[in-house]
Amino acid sequence: MNHTPEVMLPFAMLVVFGSAKLLAELCERLSLPAIVGEILAGVLVGPGVLGWITPNEFLTALSNLGAMFLLFRVGMEVKSSELIRVGPTATLVAMLGVAVPFVAGWALMAAWGFPQIEAIFTGAAMVATSVGITAQVLASKGLLSERASKIILAAAVIDDVLGLLILAVVSSLAKGKVDFVQLGITAVLAIGFTILVAFLGTRSMSKLVPHVGQRLRLGESQFAFSLVLLFALALLAVYAGVAAIVGAFLAGMALSESVEPRVKELTHGVTELLVPFFLAGIGLHVELHAFSHGSVLVLAAVLSAVAVFTKLLGCGLGALSLGRTDALRVGVGMVPRGEVGMVVAQLGLALNVIEQDIYAVVVFMAVATTLVAPPFLKIAFKGAGTGDVEVAEIS
Amino acid sequence: MNHTPEVMLPFAMLVVFGSAKLLAELCERLSLPAIVGEILAGVLVGPGVLGWITPNEFLTALSNLGAMFLLFRVGMEVKSSELIRVGPTATLVAMLGVAVPFVAGWALMAAWGFPQIEAIFTGAAMVATSVGITAQVLASKGLLSERASKIILAAAVIDDVLGLLILAVVSSLAKGKVDFVQLGITAVLAIGFTILVAFLGTRSMSKLVPHVGQRLRLGESQFAFSLVLLFALALLAVYAGVAAIVGAFLAGMALSESVEPRVKELTHGVTELLVPFFLAGIGLHVELHAFSHGSVLVLAAVLSAVAVFTKLLGCGLGALSLGRTDALRVGVGMVPRGEVGMVVAQLGLALNVIEQDIYAVVVFMAVATTLVAPPFLKIAFKGAGTGDVEVAEIS
Repeated sequence: MNHTPEVMLPFAMLVVFGSAKLLAELCERLSLPAIVGEILAGVLVGPGVLGWITPNEFLTALSNLGAMFLLFRVGMEVKSSELIRVGPTATLVAMLGVAVPFVAGWALMAAWGFPQIEAIFTGAAMVATSVGITAQVLASKGLLSERASKIILAAAVIDDVLGLLILAVVSSLAKGKVDFVQLGITAVLAIGFTILVAFLGTRSMSKLVPHVGQRLRLGESQFAFSLVLLFALALLAVYAGVAAIVGAFLAGMALSESVEPRVKELTHGVTELLVPFFLAGIGLHVELHAFSHGSVLVLAAVLSAVAVFTKLLGCGLGALSLGRTDALRVGVGMVPRGEVGMVVAQLGLALNVIEQDIYAVVVFMAVATTLVAPPFLKIAFKGAGTGDVEVAEIS
Repeated sequence: MNHTPEVMLPFAMLVVFGSAKLLAELCERLSLPAIVGEILAGVLVGPGVLGWITPNEFLTALSNLGAMFLLFRVGMEVKSSELIRVGPTATLVAMLGVAVPFVAGWALMAAWGFPQIEAIFTGAAMVATSVGITAQVLASKGLLSERASKIILAAAVIDDVLGLLILAVVSSLAKGKVDFVQLGITAVLAIGFTILVAFLGTRSMSKLVPHVGQRLRLGESQFAFSLVLLFALALLAVYAGVAAIVGAFLAGMALSESVEPRVKELTHGVTELLVPFFLAGIGLHVELHAFSHGSVLVLAAVLSAVAVFTKLLGCGLGALSLGRTDALRVGVGMVPRGEVGMVVAQLGLALNVIEQDIYAVVVFMAVATTLVAPPFLKIAFKGAGTGDVEVAEIS
């Protein structure tokens, strides 16, 4: 639809937010997670079905902002010391969770007859974990203090760094040559930034934040300070090569032990507004007309199944030392590929190494894994989160 | 500066929000209203001075969204019955506050030697009232329950309708002919929408909102419902010809007596994030290089002085029946032209009836009146708002 800018803004806000909440309500009534409805709302109002909304600069930015605020709020519920304690297990989970889907995706596409570079790129898109989806489900059910939840969050951060490195290698391959010095710098920057902020963030904020309330004359000065930290670390994260949401998560975690409850409350207001734009934004990218060929649909279904199974297998194996229940929880929690998988596919399209059909297939895989995970998460975490905060015990 | 999209989002958020809060803190320490700092931050980081940020589709939308949420929150503090009670006085205030600046601006520009149509357009731009600025000052000082505050809010809504009609006439003149039937339809739609929602909104929401919390299974269902109403009325307002922020204000007012305090708290979180983008967004439009000619600067200064004086005079006269103190408060509160004045200037530019120089002059006037008002508001309201809610008594 064509609209003047005055109409466009309230129209887009109403249609995206309203449909997300409507389908979320519907899903709740069908005993499905609300998040599934919010993603499907994007498919419904977007180019996939009704075509009322096309993703534009504003909606894309609002969606990214929603992901940043979601991870920021989740970070605020997590103590960095607890995340660091699960570090070794999480690293194993992340590594196996990257290796198994990557090799499987590559092998599947190569066996299906696609060129090597296209197969490798598809494998790289299967590496990504959209931690936002799992985090939203866990946060809304009050499950963030579970041991499996902490491993998922830590593994997702490490996964992002590993995914960045794989993407750097794969992009270099696509361009013809791999620059190992550049690759080393990328690795050191990304790992250095993440470790530095994770280790020093909480301590420095504990010293700084109490002064903010006392010294500044601004209204809601702690909230303003928190938002400045959020945007600053998101920006630094991008400069360091990792995703803005990793910076947002680290900012939340750095503040988790020092800000007043009021800051979390005000942040909650922002996430309630913006997260539906993130979720529906994932659905907006689905274009169903690519699947008019049956063979494309079959490939999409097979690839999605492989994506689910290999993440479950890799991450589950990595977390097996915690027992089967937690291994299953961690595996399911790492399944959603969401917006991160799509970004890899878009890069492949931009580099001219994957075709439009394969792009649609990867987007399908990203959305399918994202839709499948929440109901399974609900089942896997059944019986957990009875309200008492469990202290993580890692061998 | 050129940035990739990944960098652009956190960069723009950090620079605009951070500089707004930094200058707000500085202004507080200089005993100036914080709002002055937030507008000046836009001038500083925008094309006017440093050039770090240029207004783009995303920042413009975020700024408009900020204005909508600001008026929505202000509406939530106001009872429609009280606003309707001050209706007659507010109508007089709005009418005189429109007529005096319009005629004075037109006469000044014609006397200065500009063509008639350009003079008329400048006059039309001087009609606008940016209620957001005054509302933010009054809300932050807890002065919204003052009698003068209610008259300002009601008059600003009426002012918007009158401004729309003047703009419709002036645009028709610019295009060559005035269609009185079309004009009549515009008037009926705009006035009808505003009156209908103002009169029936509160009552229907009082019946509907209690069911929302009980019947819906969504989390934060009252907040979600409130946001849907906000976007729906903003959209309907635009279709009816009035500004989206008028719809947002009416939505807030309709909900003011029925939503839980939690909804206001969550809305407060959103406004704390978005309002700085609205305020800095006004400053972003200032381009200082247009004033390299001394004569342009003189005209801008004279026009701004006339804009302040005529609004004070017109609105003050309209509110004189309430006594001098309240007449002064109302007059000062209606002075800011802000983003509404700029929209008129942009339209004039688009219709090719005003030149680039005059555009810069009108933007200067809009920003200057906006910067001047908050300190004077602080003085005019001295002694008011000692905490006890005053019941409006209108003769």
